[in-house]
Amino acid sequence: MSILTRPILEINLNHLVDNYKQLQQLANKSTAAAVVKDDAYGLNAEIVARTLYEKAQCRNFFVAHAVEGEKIKKFVPDASIYVLQGIGQDSLEIFQRLKLIPVISSPEMLEYWKENRIDGIKPVIHIETGLNRLGFREKELKNLSESERKEFGLVMSHLACGDEKDHFMNKHQLDNFCRLKEEFFPKIPGSLSASDGVFLGIAFQQDIVRLGAAMYGINTAPYRENQMKNVVYLKAPVLQVEDLSVGEFVGYSATYRANSPRKIAIISIGYGDGIPRSLSNVGKVFFKTLGKLSEARIIGRVSMDNIICDVTNVDALKVGDLAYLIDDFYTLDDMGRDAGTISYEILSRIGKNTRYLRKYIEA
Amino acid sequence: MSILTRPILEINLNHLVDNYKQLQQLANKSTAAAVVKDDAYGLNAEIVARTLYEKAQCRNFFVAHAVEGEKIKKFVPDASIYVLQGIGQDSLEIFQRLKLIPVISSPEMLEYWKENRIDGIKPVIHIETGLNRLGFREKELKNLSESERKEFGLVMSHLACGDEKDHFMNKHQLDNFCRLKEEFFPKIPGSLSASDGVFLGIAFQQDIVRLGAAMYGINTAPYRENQMKNVVYLKAPVLQVEDLSVGEFVGYSATYRANSPRKIAIISIGYGDGIPRSLSNVGKVFFKTLGKLSEARIIGRVSMDNIICDVTNVDALKVGDLAYLIDDFYTLDDMGRDAGTISYEILSRIGKNTRYLRKYIEA
Repeated sequence: MSILTRPILEINLNHLVDNYKQLQQLANKSTAAAVVKDDAYGLNAEIVARTLYEKAQCRNFFVAHAVEGEKIKKFVPDASIYVLQGIGQDSLEIFQRLKLIPVISSPEMLEYWKENRIDGIKPVIHIETGLNRLGFREKELKNLSESERKEFGLVMSHLACGDEKDHFMNKHQLDNFCRLKEEFFPKIPGSLSASDGVFLGIAFQQDIVRLGAAMYGINTAPYRENQMKNVVYLKAPVLQVEDLSVGEFVGYSATYRANSPRKIAIISIGYGDGIPRSLSNVGKVFFKTLGKLSEARIIGRVSMDNIICDVTNVDALKVGDLAYLIDDFYTLDDMGRDAGTISYEILSRIGKNTRYLRKYIEA
Repeated sequence: MSILTRPILEINLNHLVDNYKQLQQLANKSTAAAVVKDDAYGLNAEIVARTLYEKAQCRNFFVAHAVEGEKIKKFVPDASIYVLQGIGQDSLEIFQRLKLIPVISSPEMLEYWKENRIDGIKPVIHIETGLNRLGFREKELKNLSESERKEFGLVMSHLACGDEKDHFMNKHQLDNFCRLKEEFFPKIPGSLSASDGVFLGIAFQQDIVRLGAAMYGINTAPYRENQMKNVVYLKAPVLQVEDLSVGEFVGYSATYRANSPRKIAIISIGYGDGIPRSLSNVGKVFFKTLGKLSEARIIGRVSMDNIICDVTNVDALKVGDLAYLIDDFYTLDDMGRDAGTISYEILSRIGKNTRYLRKYIEA
């Protein structure tokens, strides 16, 4: 009797490294930095950073918060670690101790930096080119003194629509970036693009590209087939298989009603494990039985620990079999689309529950 | 110069204990068990379980997975720990070592239990009464032998619509529960209700109630005012305040365009921290400036590390001020409603990022 209860998250580190190297090629002479913020999008920043450091000689890492830099520091001892959200009194000590590099995004943060400079560190200046998120606006750049401009070792910005090849915003931001860089920071390197910008051509690649989503297998150029390998594989065991009679309801708030006799399976994974509740009555789950791949619809509400699916057309399914939730044939992008969101949000959620049985596949 | 970069998650353990005690009162003579699965809905199961054990003499805990029981065991050494997803070969060793109590939900799992009984442990039988999720169906109960029925120490089921006072399903499930319990397990205690069922009256309370959502401050009886105290307080610092001119776009995919001059603030929190991306252009954020509470709309897409909001009508806001995302005046339930989901999913997401500055408030 085979009974399993835990969901299983497999992360293929070989594919991660292959993606990194492929993106590095696509980025021509630009330096490939790895974005491992948000705990490497939930996949475990220590493991991801160490792997890229050892297997791909990556020496530049971007995190969002200093505490995230602290987590990876010992695995990438001589690498540069850039902190996108910048520096403040809630993180100063970590910057000082570990020599992290802050990204300065506002005149106020620059003032704070000037009061708390760290020997040997040249911060990054984040300039705003069209996203209207973090970054110095043009009028603020004009207010910088000559000596203030010389504080910085790198100038960066971020694209708003890099995943839409022909969006007017791309050229608009590139023009802004080149113009502002030329005017205020002509002598330091520049970084404009994340994964999506790599595919927009050499002008967007500048001196450093920041590889995140695509490295984790997401299609950041959705106007063409994904060239990346899948990194995330998610499975969960079938806890129960039952018949459903006409008129029976399924799940919270009784949102599914059987209109014909159905067979259902209860799977040991739910929104607590990162499966979006918006997949209720919409999402798909896959099974491999009798040597073939079958598809089953999620029925009723996704609950915290379980989902229920209609397996009427899945042959020979039994308790202890595995349901496949993310795989080569149904990727993060597919689940994001079905859930009414983007794969980035799915990825960020999936990895965060400690109750997964985690397997890291490594050559 | 005050610059902060990290989001702050405050968990009021006094309110948690007060809620537990209030629910215990409402549950009359029923024993109040605490549900701490999914890492206590993301709030840290060790801390929550220890607090309820020490401050409220709670001696019964429900988790979803054995690994979650393992996490809390040393903080509640002599308590009963029930494992809702049951027992299997991926968890047997933990059950044996820590004497956890499995919830058996299918004939197949019962077979597994019979092959792997643990001395001194009486498992729970989960019976299906209308949710059509986990649990023995009536025909499966009829197949149990007399000795099999005697394996169990508790019989449980779970309500589908307990948060809708007059839903026909409630009486349907109560009737089923009482009938099946009387027929198959007349001599052992019963547990039918989670938090929502406690409010449905004494018949639903049976011998053990399983307190989860309401204890964490969620309104599980939304047909009347919430009687629970708020437990979760979420804040994040303002990283930048900027003007926006007519025609400027904000955020990924340029989904917001300024039609009049606006003032915007960039807040250091995003979907990586559990703020649903479905709050894009919809959600609300609050500020306390000049001694008054102001409300601001989220504009543009929620991104992984940041949200942007329209602070045109917020007086005197400056970098380093805090944005209030969840509080007494805007609860988990409010955010769930605005995000098109339920507070349970919000709560489960919020607590899972390790980059929060966490504060546990305790008397």
